[in-house]
Formats: sequence, C-alpha cells, structure tokens
Amino acid sequence: MNAAPGPIAGFYSIIPAGGIGSRLWPLSRADAPKFLHDLTGSGQTLLRDTWDRLEPLSGTDRIMVVTGRAHRAAVEKQLPELQDLNVVLESEPKDSSAAIGLAAAILVKREPEVVIGSFAADHVIRDTRGFRRSVTEAVAVARAGYIATIGITPTEAAVGFGYIHCAAPLALDGAPSAFMVDDFVEKPDYATAKRYLDDSSYLWNAGMFIVRADVLLDQLAQTQPELHAGLIELADAWDGPDRGAVVDKVWPGLTKIAIDYSVAEPAAAAGRVAVVPGDFDWDDVGDFASIAKLHSGGRKNDLAILGENARVLADSASGVVVSQSGRLISLIGVTDIIVVDTPDALLVTTSEHAQRVKSVVDALKLSGRSDVL
Amino acid sequence: MNAAPGPIAGFYSIIPAGGIGSRLWPLSRADAPKFLHDLTGSGQTLLRDTWDRLEPLSGTDRIMVVTGRAHRAAVEKQLPELQDLNVVLESEPKDSSAAIGLAAAILVKREPEVVIGSFAADHVIRDTRGFRRSVTEAVAVARAGYIATIGITPTEAAVGFGYIHCAAPLALDGAPSAFMVDDFVEKPDYATAKRYLDDSSYLWNAGMFIVRADVLLDQLAQTQPELHAGLIELADAWDGPDRGAVVDKVWPGLTKIAIDYSVAEPAAAAGRVAVVPGDFDWDDVGDFASIAKLHSGGRKNDLAILGENARVLADSASGVVVSQSGRLISLIGVTDIIVVDTPDALLVTTSEHAQRVKSVVDALKLSGRSDVL
Repeated sequence: MNAAPGPIAGFYSIIPAGGIGSRLWPLSRADAPKFLHDLTGSGQTLLRDTWDRLEPLSGTDRIMVVTGRAHRAAVEKQLPELQDLNVVLESEPKDSSAAIGLAAAILVKREPEVVIGSFAADHVIRDTRGFRRSVTEAVAVARAGYIATIGITPTEAAVGFGYIHCAAPLALDGAPSAFMVDDFVEKPDYATAKRYLDDSSYLWNAGMFIVRADVLLDQLAQTQPELHAGLIELADAWDGPDRGAVVDKVWPGLTKIAIDYSVAEPAAAAGRVAVVPGDFDWDDVGDFASIAKLHSGGRKNDLAILGENARVLADSASGVVVSQSGRLISLIGVTDIIVVDTPDALLVTTSEHAQRVKSVVDALKLSGRSDVL
Repeated sequence: MNAAPGPIAGFYSIIPAGGIGSRLWPLSRADAPKFLHDLTGSGQTLLRDTWDRLEPLSGTDRIMVVTGRAHRAAVEKQLPELQDLNVVLESEPKDSSAAIGLAAAILVKREPEVVIGSFAADHVIRDTRGFRRSVTEAVAVARAGYIATIGITPTEAAVGFGYIHCAAPLALDGAPSAFMVDDFVEKPDYATAKRYLDDSSYLWNAGMFIVRADVLLDQLAQTQPELHAGLIELADAWDGPDRGAVVDKVWPGLTKIAIDYSVAEPAAAAGRVAVVPGDFDWDDVGDFASIAKLHSGGRKNDLAILGENARVLADSASGVVVSQSGRLISLIGVTDIIVVDTPDALLVTTSEHAQRVKSVVDALKLSGRSDVL
C-alpha cells in the first residue's frame, strides 16, 4: 500500500463560502445557504465535502474560509479543525474579488511566496485523485507566474456554465497538460454549447483559481486600484489590534465585482492565464435539476429524496423531493417533478424549469417577502 | 316580475351527507368530508349550495339530512334552518340503501303519500331553473308509481360516471320528456363512453332518485327483506321514546348496499324505473380535475386557487392549488398541476392522474396512516 501523498508545498486553499444559491430556493435561504446543505446524499454538507477534498492538498492548517458573519457558527460547527487565523468574516457580501483578494492580501503578508487556490464551498467533485492531479499541475503553473484555472472537460452541451477557450499549449515543466487561455465565455445558448462540446478547445469554467497571492494582487492593482488599496489597508491591520476598526471603516466601501471581471478576463486578454484541463467529475449543483442528476447517476425514472425522516409516498414519480416540513408528501404520476417542502414555503416545478427558480426569488424580493428568502 | 314559484306539493327532499370523497384527499378527510368544503368558489360549502337549491322545491321544513353523528355539529352550522325532526344521524356508515330507506320509512309514517327526492350533498348544479323543471317532471313520474331518476345529458365521453339507458318514451301527463329505463350501466371505458356520447339514448347517472316513499320501501322489501324489516323497526320507534335503544340494537346489523343495487337496477329490470333527461349543468366534483374544470369554465391555462388567504406565486401554471397551510406556494412552469397543501399532508399530481388519488388513500389505510385520512 502506498502512503497517502502529503500536502502540496507552499499551497494554501481558500474557500469563499458566500453564495446563497437562489436557484435552490426555498431549500437554500439567506440563513441556510447552499453550502450548508447535503445535496448529494453524502451524509454531510457541501462545505464539509469541500474541506475534506482540500485538506489533503494543503493541510489542515492551510485552509482559509471567507464567509459572512451570520454563518460563522454554522461554518465552525461544520469545520471544527478550522483555526481562528484562517477565518475571514465579511460584515456584508462584497462579491468574490473582495473575498479572495482579502484572503490573498492577508496570506501574502504572512508568507510572501504563497500559492493560493480558491474553490467554491458548494460544488461537487467525487474523483478526488483526478482533482489532485489537476491542482498539482495548476500550482506548478501558478509558480511560473501565471494565473491558473482548472477547466472541466464538457460531458454535455450545458447552457448553465461559462466556458474557457484554450489557446496554445503552455509547455511548462510540471504542467504538461496546461494551455494558455485567450478567452472566458459567458453562458452560451444551446446551439453554441453544442458547438463547444464538439470543439475540444472549450472547457467548463468551474471558478477555480490557483495563483501566487502576489500575482493576484498585482492584477487587482492594475484593474481595480481602489479595491486593491482597500484590501491592502485591511490586510495591514488584520493581524493587529485595529482589525475591527479598519474593517468597519474600509469594508463597506469596497467595490463589488466578481473576480472573473476584475482578474480572470483582463489577465487572459493580457496572456497571463493558463488552464489545466480537469477530467474529473464536477457539478456546481446550480439548480434542482442538477440535484436530480447527481442522485440518479444518470438513470431516468428515479426519484431523489432529500430530508431526514422524509415521508414520501410516490407512485411512478421521478425528479426531486426535498422534505423539511415533516409532512406526508404524496406524488402521483408526475415525472421530472421538483417538490421542495419547507415549513413556510413550498415550491413545485419541473427539471426543465429549474433554472427559473431564481425569478421567483427576485419576485419575492421585489414584493418585500424577505421573510421566506 | 313573476312571483317565485312555490314548493312542489307533497314533495320532500332528502340529502344523504355521507361520503368522504377519497379522490379529493388530502382536502377531504374523515373529519372534513367533501360536502363541508367550498369546491366551486361559491363562497359556501357544497352542502349549503345543495340546501339552497332544494329549499325552493320542497320548502324549508321539508328537507331531511342523513349524516354521521360526527358531522352533526358541522351540518347544523351550515344549515341553521334544519329542524331537529329532519335530522337522521347514522352511528356508523351503512351505505345509501339504509340512509335513504330509513328516511323514507320515517317520512311515510308521518305522511303516507309523500314523494321523496334524494340528492347528494356534494354535487354541483348551477342552472337551478333547469333543475327545477326536471324535478317537477320527476315528481309527476313518481306520483304515477314509478321510481324516477334524473339523467344528465352527456357533454363529453366521461368515464367517471355511470350511465342510464333510455327505452321507450313514458308518455305521461306532466312528464312529457320522460323515458322508461331498461338498464343502468357502470362506468364505461373510453371507447364505450364515446359511443354513448354519440347515442342520445344514454344519460349520466347523477344518483338522483325521486319516488313515493311507499314505492321505494316496497321495492326494498322485495330485494332486501332483512334490511327493509330493520328500517321499519327503526322508523316505528323513531318518533317515540325508544329511538336510541332501537337504533343501538338495529343499525349495526343493517346490510350495507348501495341503492343502485338494492332498488334502481332490479326495479329497472322489472320496468318500474323512468328517467327525466336533465339538460342542466351537473358535476359530481369527483376529483381535482373536476374542480379545475369547474373553476376555469372550460378555459385552458387557468389556475384555480382554493383556500382562504392563499399565498400563491405562479408563473405560467395551470391546474388547481388548494392552500390550507398558510405557506407560500410557488409554481413554476407546471401545467394541469394539482397541488393540495394541508398542514399534515401534501399531494402533487396532475389532472390526468386525478382519479388515482384514491389509490393513495387506500395505500395509507393499509399502512395504518389513518392519522392523515
């Protein structure tokens, strides 16, 4: 038996645990975001699954979690090993550039050469070996000064993901499969997605960034100088006595922008991004249709049931049932159905319409129904 | 302005208020049967609608209600005008022959020539004039010694109803449209129902019987002599001091049989049944698909919402939502959907499968889940 491979030298994982997951309403809520649910039937939350996947790569002491103040207790309950110096609490959501940028700024002060890898708290990957292979290559790419990402080899014409376009091979020692990236593409229409599937130079954008912290901050300094200055001010005070005061002063004014726009796209245009194609399974569990697919393992006519002590009586039904209210749920002759039964809100839709759940959340916001959001 | 026509002389209405309405579970329950719900959006229960339809035909003092002991309070709340001497309480359900037969036996002692009309507590008729025309003819038929029924002119190839076959015209003064009946037909398959629709001699069996009480009892004496003897014993004691003791002794042993089998079919075979074709609207609200149809007025793409203070957010949905739990209900892109949301049970099905709801009720019975029935 081989010994388990140790952590990757000098590597630090960052888990931004922020998004609510509006397309998973009414299961995911402001006070019970997607990353705090077990959506795969693994028996533990997506956040815990993420930790367990990253811990062998960077070590227990080298995983930083960036999350909202409201989620601190829940996160610490899920991750008892998480050390205080690896917790970054946001007083309000400021999108991914601020979250990942602050982690980078804090870590680079502690360890100037550090390579960070940012991985969403609420994605699903089962092939941990394949994942490790890709991360290892991506760290080599990052060491060479590039902003590395991992692109997932498409298995269908998905319209729910963004895409990464591979240009020339990077030809770097330690990263034999990497390519330069010349473009990040937004979610395509179906015809375009089908074309991408046939064209092996397009990969799914899984939102994974592996980069030297100083390189990330240099890029931010160029494209978002104000945001960069704020993050540096925060990081300078972070490990000292003034952290609270500086956070209160600086954080509310930070620019809200996704890291895709502040870093990935401009850096790709400047020839500074490379991608490692990942051939492991990956899903962002973006909507209830994804959950159905994850549970059925691709089989048709399966009904996925989520919820402790779910009481479901189903006659020729397929799809997903989420049972949180303790009520008896009876389904008759409904296919690809999605039923999410919570104590104060019920959703009924179909896999086909799963992406439109967000529109209901938007409508509820507009009508002042934040009590159920 | 014409004066409203008065009651029909010598006519007494009977409302058997018994069936739970299993196909309307989980809305209809043992403790909240179908007749105690507003299923049409009229603003009042089906029972009250039935009373309001019959009251002009027989007068306030001449409507007898046969119901279970458990429903007495609810029935009296719905029908404050109902007089004590018009209440017949069943200690346990004994099917329609016992319910209607006992009413007939009680009434014939009070009024030997009485013509009774039995009408379900949970059917819907909106054309009260058309209904009155048919009942008036049926009373004339009953006076002539026949067992009269009212058959509804089919408007579609319905497989959820039984049918009545018209033989020769009855040719009776006062009942110009009546026919002899030579057969009652059970619920047909679709091909047969389609044939019936094209053949004008088939009518829907709406379960309405109009008959002299003595004629009904004579028929019962022939086909169900033991049941008949029990009913006479009950009726003899009914208006005296021994009612309770005799009920306790006799009622539990009465034969359970539908009046269709004890009276209608054998009498038809013997040439003693006539039918008045009813050209009014009628629906037995047998399942949730009926409710959808009643609410939409035949229009497609309508969502019928039942329930006080229902909070439903529906995006391109059609079908029926019953909201009894106070929760927010959100529907996205579901058509012909049926969602019945009650505090302890949730049903999701489609109009196409509405008839199969009864199978869930049967399964719940078998698994000992009478708490939700």
